[in-house]
Amino acid sequence: MKRIAFALLALAGPLAAQAPDMASTIEYRQGIYKAIRWNWGPLAQMVQGKAPFVRADFVKRATRISFLSHQLLEGYPPGAHEGAVTDALPAIWENFDDFSAKLDSFKLEARNLRLVAESGDEPAIKQQFIKTAGTCKACHDKYKAD
Amino acid sequence: MKRIAFALLALAGPLAAQAPDMASTIEYRQGIYKAIRWNWGPLAQMVQGKAPFVRADFVKRATRISFLSHQLLEGYPPGAHEGAVTDALPAIWENFDDFSAKLDSFKLEARNLRLVAESGDEPAIKQQFIKTAGTCKACHDKYKAD
Repeated sequence: MKRIAFALLALAGPLAAQAPDMASTIEYRQGIYKAIRWNWGPLAQMVQGKAPFVRADFVKRATRISFLSHQLLEGYPPGAHEGAVTDALPAIWENFDDFSAKLDSFKLEARNLRLVAESGDEPAIKQQFIKTAGTCKACHDKYKAD
Repeated sequence: MKRIAFALLALAGPLAAQAPDMASTIEYRQGIYKAIRWNWGPLAQMVQGKAPFVRADFVKRATRISFLSHQLLEGYPPGAHEGAVTDALPAIWENFDDFSAKLDSFKLEARNLRLVAESGDEPAIKQQFIKTAGTCKACHDKYKAD
């Protein structure tokens, strides 16, 4: 039991008794973006005809992206552009309603991508993929460095 | 349309025409672990009585952990302990069936944690949380440096 209690504490780590620090918050949201990108890559390959279209794989990865999109907003509490290397621009917190609305657009279009993917209609999937990519770009153009 | 095509390619990045490199693979799985840990922390606080038990939040975070657990295995292709800083030990690839079975245990117990969380039975949730933590520890003890 002592071992298990230790494991519990070890796993909880620095989060056990306090709110996450900003560095952890930044790492968290960067982790979510990496996971989104990882799943986005194969979709881009399929849409561009660089890989064969495999509906089950497309649905799986679109579902992941949609699920992950809902985990981004909590990675942007006030002040979360300090304490670690980040591409997030201070403009996010100066225009938080707009930023949040852009994230909502991404969530909506990623959900639609999942739904369209399930239909298996390749031209519609391609169209929705481009629309979803547009919501990524809209946010990156204004709120991401580089 | 040109702008959109550019955005598509830019977002697809280095994944557009080839399999992901090992550094990206390692960053991907580390991203998933960071997202798991982010959601695990508040559960640990609730289980330990350091934060009030809020069922909806517990369910939300347990659901995320369960969903994320299914995205780990593809972060461990052969050779994915080289090319970036990683805590993953070579023992993973020397005992891949065992590693994979341990990941399966985590997936199973994380799913059970989600299901038990939905029941709202706090003592059962605590018990299942400890069981799930045990599956993390079983893998970390053998396959994670530090």
